[in-house]
Amino acid sequence: MHIGFIGLGNMGAPMALNLLKAGHQLSVFDLSASSVAALVEAGARSAASVAELARRTPEVIISMLPAAQHVKGVYLGDAGLLAHVAPGVLLIDSSTIDPMSAREVSALALTQGNRMLDAPVSGGTGGAAAGTLTFMVGGAAADFDAALPVLQAMGRNIVHCGPSGNGQVAKVANNMLLAISMIGTAEAMNLGVSLGMDAKVLAGVLNSSSGRCWSSDTYNPYPGVMEGVPAARGYSGGFGSNLMLKDLGLATTAAQQAGQPVPMGALAQQLYQTFSRQGNGHLDFSAIIKLCNGEIE
Amino acid sequence: MHIGFIGLGNMGAPMALNLLKAGHQLSVFDLSASSVAALVEAGARSAASVAELARRTPEVIISMLPAAQHVKGVYLGDAGLLAHVAPGVLLIDSSTIDPMSAREVSALALTQGNRMLDAPVSGGTGGAAAGTLTFMVGGAAADFDAALPVLQAMGRNIVHCGPSGNGQVAKVANNMLLAISMIGTAEAMNLGVSLGMDAKVLAGVLNSSSGRCWSSDTYNPYPGVMEGVPAARGYSGGFGSNLMLKDLGLATTAAQQAGQPVPMGALAQQLYQTFSRQGNGHLDFSAIIKLCNGEIE
Amino acid sequence: MHIGFIGLGNMGAPMALNLLKAGHQLSVFDLSASSVAALVEAGARSAASVAELARRTPEVIISMLPAAQHVKGVYLGDAGLLAHVAPGVLLIDSSTIDPMSAREVSALALTQGNRMLDAPVSGGTGGAAAGTLTFMVGGAAADFDAALPVLQAMGRNIVHCGPSGNGQVAKVANNMLLAISMIGTAEAMNLGVSLGMDAKVLAGVLNSSSGRCWSSDTYNPYPGVMEGVPAARGYSGGFGSNLMLKDLGLATTAAQQAGQPVPMGALAQQLYQTFSRQGNGHLDFSAIIKLCNGEIE
Amino acid sequence: MHIGFIGLGNMGAPMALNLLKAGHQLSVFDLSASSVAALVEAGARSAASVAELARRTPEVIISMLPAAQHVKGVYLGDAGLLAHVAPGVLLIDSSTIDPMSAREVSALALTQGNRMLDAPVSGGTGGAAAGTLTFMVGGAAADFDAALPVLQAMGRNIVHCGPSGNGQVAKVANNMLLAISMIGTAEAMNLGVSLGMDAKVLAGVLNSSSGRCWSSDTYNPYPGVMEGVPAARGYSGGFGSNLMLKDLGLATTAAQQAGQPVPMGALAQQLYQTFSRQGNGHLDFSAIIKLCNGEIE
Repeated sequence: MHIGFIGLGNMGAPMALNLLKAGHQLSVFDLSASSVAALVEAGARSAASVAELARRTPEVIISMLPAAQHVKGVYLGDAGLLAHVAPGVLLIDSSTIDPMSAREVSALALTQGNRMLDAPVSGGTGGAAAGTLTFMVGGAAADFDAALPVLQAMGRNIVHCGPSGNGQVAKVANNMLLAISMIGTAEAMNLGVSLGMDAKVLAGVLNSSSGRCWSSDTYNPYPGVMEGVPAARGYSGGFGSNLMLKDLGLATTAAQQAGQPVPMGALAQQLYQTFSRQGNGHLDFSAIIKLCNGEIE
Repeated sequence: MHIGFIGLGNMGAPMALNLLKAGHQLSVFDLSASSVAALVEAGARSAASVAELARRTPEVIISMLPAAQHVKGVYLGDAGLLAHVAPGVLLIDSSTIDPMSAREVSALALTQGNRMLDAPVSGGTGGAAAGTLTFMVGGAAADFDAALPVLQAMGRNIVHCGPSGNGQVAKVANNMLLAISMIGTAEAMNLGVSLGMDAKVLAGVLNSSSGRCWSSDTYNPYPGVMEGVPAARGYSGGFGSNLMLKDLGLATTAAQQAGQPVPMGALAQQLYQTFSRQGNGHLDFSAIIKLCNGEIE
Repeated sequence: MHIGFIGLGNMGAPMALNLLKAGHQLSVFDLSASSVAALVEAGARSAASVAELARRTPEVIISMLPAAQHVKGVYLGDAGLLAHVAPGVLLIDSSTIDPMSAREVSALALTQGNRMLDAPVSGGTGGAAAGTLTFMVGGAAADFDAALPVLQAMGRNIVHCGPSGNGQVAKVANNMLLAISMIGTAEAMNLGVSLGMDAKVLAGVLNSSSGRCWSSDTYNPYPGVMEGVPAARGYSGGFGSNLMLKDLGLATTAAQQAGQPVPMGALAQQLYQTFSRQGNGHLDFSAIIKLCNGEIE
Repeated sequence: MHIGFIGLGNMGAPMALNLLKAGHQLSVFDLSASSVAALVEAGARSAASVAELARRTPEVIISMLPAAQHVKGVYLGDAGLLAHVAPGVLLIDSSTIDPMSAREVSALALTQGNRMLDAPVSGGTGGAAAGTLTFMVGGAAADFDAALPVLQAMGRNIVHCGPSGNGQVAKVANNMLLAISMIGTAEAMNLGVSLGMDAKVLAGVLNSSSGRCWSSDTYNPYPGVMEGVPAARGYSGGFGSNLMLKDLGLATTAAQQAGQPVPMGALAQQLYQTFSRQGNGHLDFSAIIKLCNGEIE
């Protein structure tokens, strides 16, 4: 299949490579010449602009961009994707943006006869490289079915979350809960250890009890509890605190728009903002345990 | 084995019955005559006072009381357990109290030649009746080994958490994390549904992603997502919000004593306090989802 | 002076009337025919559109609109104010909106040779009617001086807060602190009374000590402490909780954009959102004391 | 008048000196020999123990101790004040402790025929030296009247807050509101400055508007806004963050006992705990502005 790919950053580049590996024909665009060059070397064709990429009429176009403003920049306006893409092309935006913006762009695409899915991912750069991402997909069922074989070249768990925008909704809801559970796990571990418990024993109790969560049993933030997690290597790698902060911003803003209280989510946003302001935004998001515990290195 | 049992409330009574069923000889004490009568009918001998029960010199004495003040009332003072129990008797307090008080009582017991374990439970009245409680045990390893066969008559998962007081530490750390995850799950479910997602689909996404936790996959608070949980029956039964509020009080007080910040735990305590103050303390703790969502019945 | 006025709602109408009373010539526009009719009866001329009002070339145009989207709707686009206003006209937006939007509109106005001030107010409908509003003004010093006589017809305290957007910054900073102090006062009063103090005596102590604030000494939320405040009349009138919620949304969003933690401000936003979600958004913002105290009517 | 004074720390010593200056006869006790020596040099007589001081039967005995455990240690037990003081002596405890403990000790004193007041102070070591403390007094009106001339030698503002314990209630309610307003002021100042406002201009707006509070107009935490406050000297001197943390602990614990939600108070407690844990407990409590703003020195 001929696929267009826009946005070759830390996530987009390995995703695009997996499409090539799966045998797809690929046209790519990015503002960074070196990012484009790496994909061309792997077998992709470069496009000089979004418009040129669109005019080649690939069957599917995938975008992977940092924020809503970039998505609007790529899709809208005279030089944008929607102004140049042929009717019937399936558009898939894998950026993580707010649901309202996703629905706005998708409504415009549908109006002019394109199909569009929002399909944000989880799994990080590791999952992008390994082709094991989770895709949370919003849009029409038929479009989801059409996209499935393409997405399966990049991910393992592909979930249809309902109509347009719902992929973004699922993503922000999940990541808000993840941030809350991570800080909760950090507090429980700090509290238990400060009161005299061994960290590994405590984690064992939590993981076999009702406190069990992904942050405690798969990604424990306390050093020495697990191997192979960021806590075991000084909180390098993983999913950065600043990225979590961005997702919490999307969640609390969406909650404001919906008139929905999220007191824990808002506190999580503030704690990550404080942690970031103290100079730790580059550390994995499990490093938030250090905000309340100066003894952890 | 001859076992003494003090405190025959909603938890203590079914625990004591399971000891009888396991073939143990039982002496019991409670201030409520009817509670005592029920156990006597099932085969236990009653004692007129804590002191009398102690003087019968059972090999093991178990207590199950509402709060630290009751534990101190039963164990300390001229009429208390410690003043009348024979040296060498193994004392097991299964009440949920603060770790400091547990350590204080246990230190006094050890000083006079008794052995003592703190062994709070989780699993609720259902687990007490079915004999499937989890015991989180603090105290010497040899005492833990001695207590194991007795505790196995009442529970399934018996965990040694380290020295004296650590059973209580594990309990408050776990329940604090549980409260945080439950409110986090409630917020994520409310947010997703208010933004247009189907509750079951959203729970499915969370449970296969990094937001997964016991509160989302085993005890989901959103009505219609799961069968057999309090959310499926108007939040009756289960673990009451006021009991969770009590445990959060223990956790935040212990954190104060340890100089350990627990911002999420403290917010959880305040939200349950608000929910209780609004007249909902008798509802299962998953009903906290109603605090921020007036549309859920 | 010939003044144009756009937006004749609860605030705009009495402000416009005060301009008439001060002897100014007034052209007005509003989507509501009845709002326009009331001003026409008082001596204003109506305009059929924003564009028509602009083409009459008043010396000053004032707008008073509910939110940023309305301000952008009125100022931008082919039918908007900026497209039709003559160069040199002084534009004053008294709406409360986010500083970023205020700066965006003002930058466009300056580019095309207009002068523009953001001048949000405090003082409510009472202050608007009495002409005692406070204006927090952002923009060039010369423009502030030019606007002063006009603003003095509507307000008493006119403060220059610095360059464009700073009026909005001062407004959101002040109202965020107001919300925090109000909830803090409510908590201190609830706590003291629940521990046995007389509300009036407690307020007296706070007001002569370091807890003193506008919410405690001028607008006390506890019933029976002061006369003439919303707490003395069932929390009717005053500054609605939903309006405070809107301002807290502006504050927390601006904080996100600035990367600035505001944990108390975010919690205040969540508590007002919860209070609103429970059906109390129409009550004065001091009614937040009821969120944590079910006994206050 | 012959007055006994127990507790000659940073606060107690200057208070005792002011009693001497006012012409009172003074007997003093403290565990620190050097603290006692300083008072003896100034004209006081030392007592070898609390019991000896009590047996000298001064007309009034004042205590100024760090925490409830010390108050109970001094007043209760075989060697304690209550066991040795003559009936009729007026006891005044100026320590800041929880209201429950204050009421417990005072009830015992009354039972045996003594009169007792709780009379915690505000004003810090500066106010203690200058004799300008505020006393918040709980106890019988007649006892308050009797104590007034004595307290006026040490303070300026002496307030009767109602029956026993109410002095402590007023103190914790005031200081909780103070902490909330201080953090709120810090957030508003940080937010405004990060969005482009001059700190002095912003403080001016707040202080003439509804955001006005003691923390903004008398003790502003932003450097450069005011002279003579801790923010003007690197946050040295003043009222230490760890002392505020202690008072917030008393407030939140009292709120738990009263079943009263104080979400802002609890968050303030957590923020000061975090600030303290990060190594800043010795700084004035207005330094909390640095928690969320790494650029302030």
